[in-house]
Amino acid sequence: MADTIEITPRTGTAFTLNKGQRLTVIDPKGVQVSDLVAFNRHDPEEVISNGRTLDYASRIYLTTGDPLYSNRSNVMLKIVADNTPGKHDFLLTPCSKDTFRIIYGDKDPHQGCFGNIAGAIEPYGISSDRIPCAFNCFMNVTVDSDSGELKVLPPITKAGDSIEFVAEMDLIVALTACSALQSNGGSFKPIQYKISD
Amino acid sequence: MADTIEITPRTGTAFTLNKGQRLTVIDPKGVQVSDLVAFNRHDPEEVISNGRTLDYASRIYLTTGDPLYSNRSNVMLKIVADNTPGKHDFLLTPCSKDTFRIIYGDKDPHQGCFGNIAGAIEPYGISSDRIPCAFNCFMNVTVDSDSGELKVLPPITKAGDSIEFVAEMDLIVALTACSALQSNGGSFKPIQYKISD
Repeated sequence: MADTIEITPRTGTAFTLNKGQRLTVIDPKGVQVSDLVAFNRHDPEEVISNGRTLDYASRIYLTTGDPLYSNRSNVMLKIVADNTPGKHDFLLTPCSKDTFRIIYGDKDPHQGCFGNIAGAIEPYGISSDRIPCAFNCFMNVTVDSDSGELKVLPPITKAGDSIEFVAEMDLIVALTACSALQSNGGSFKPIQYKISD
Repeated sequence: MADTIEITPRTGTAFTLNKGQRLTVIDPKGVQVSDLVAFNRHDPEEVISNGRTLDYASRIYLTTGDPLYSNRSNVMLKIVADNTPGKHDFLLTPCSKDTFRIIYGDKDPHQGCFGNIAGAIEPYGISSDRIPCAFNCFMNVTVDSDSGELKVLPPITKAGDSIEFVAEMDLIVALTACSALQSNGGSFKPIQYKISD
């Protein structure tokens, strides 16, 4: 049985995932977001792309059966199970020092998911400039059809909800326990994940 | 007075824009999209970012007064005039061979805006892997609030409508007359632009 690994609040990690392996991302306490980005392990210039994925899906909300495409229009991951109410975000970039400075007005901002991902991918030789819009597991972003207004609302996940992906190529994946208060209903919680064959 | 330059249907170009210069993108016949991407001229690893921009704007529809941010959260361009009904898209990547293969089922697909941008930025030493989601001037993409369904509808621009940007840093800009039938109301038309100090 696969080990469950915990990502402590406001941190992140990176790991490799082989083609065919499954990654389960778990929200152990509920109402917590996990940012996921993915790179082709053999050529990290190939990276997950929200624009390609949303265009081909013709939907901003993705769930079981939906492929996540790269900037080269190859499928990197596929969602194979979605044990949540089905709300994840693929519009926004990882929260960062600048997010906290611009949106929250913080004077001494946390490095956010962006900084956590940057630190986690550095050992793989990938620059922070390569960090794209993340697939934000469990993140509850609504769009008003008329005005186009975006709202970041508390996730609608319950404790133990999860989403499962299968890798469609050999990957480097970075994953966080999100650091933005607004995204997580006002408190920071851990994220868990497990990898299985 | 600034010269008006025409981009012929289904092609693209790239040019430099100095900090403080203004770029006007014109839809001379109406109902035509123009994909715009921008790179920091002194460090092309810095590139326009839809995720940063939409997050900071809290809106998917951008118009006069809105800044367009880079992946490093710096303002690259600002929209200073919007002589259109105010509908532009910043969700989708440039149409490409893969777009035409996956969405249209084309057997011998056109290279699309992606191929046109790739060719135009190559002389500046920028790889096609660096092409991000474009700011799609005049593109009419709607999002259903409930289902998240995206629809690419004909632009609502009239002949002569335009949008004007000011450069907030020295830039390389790529600009197209979009190659996707669905985005342009079923026919391919030119785009015009002019640069002024």
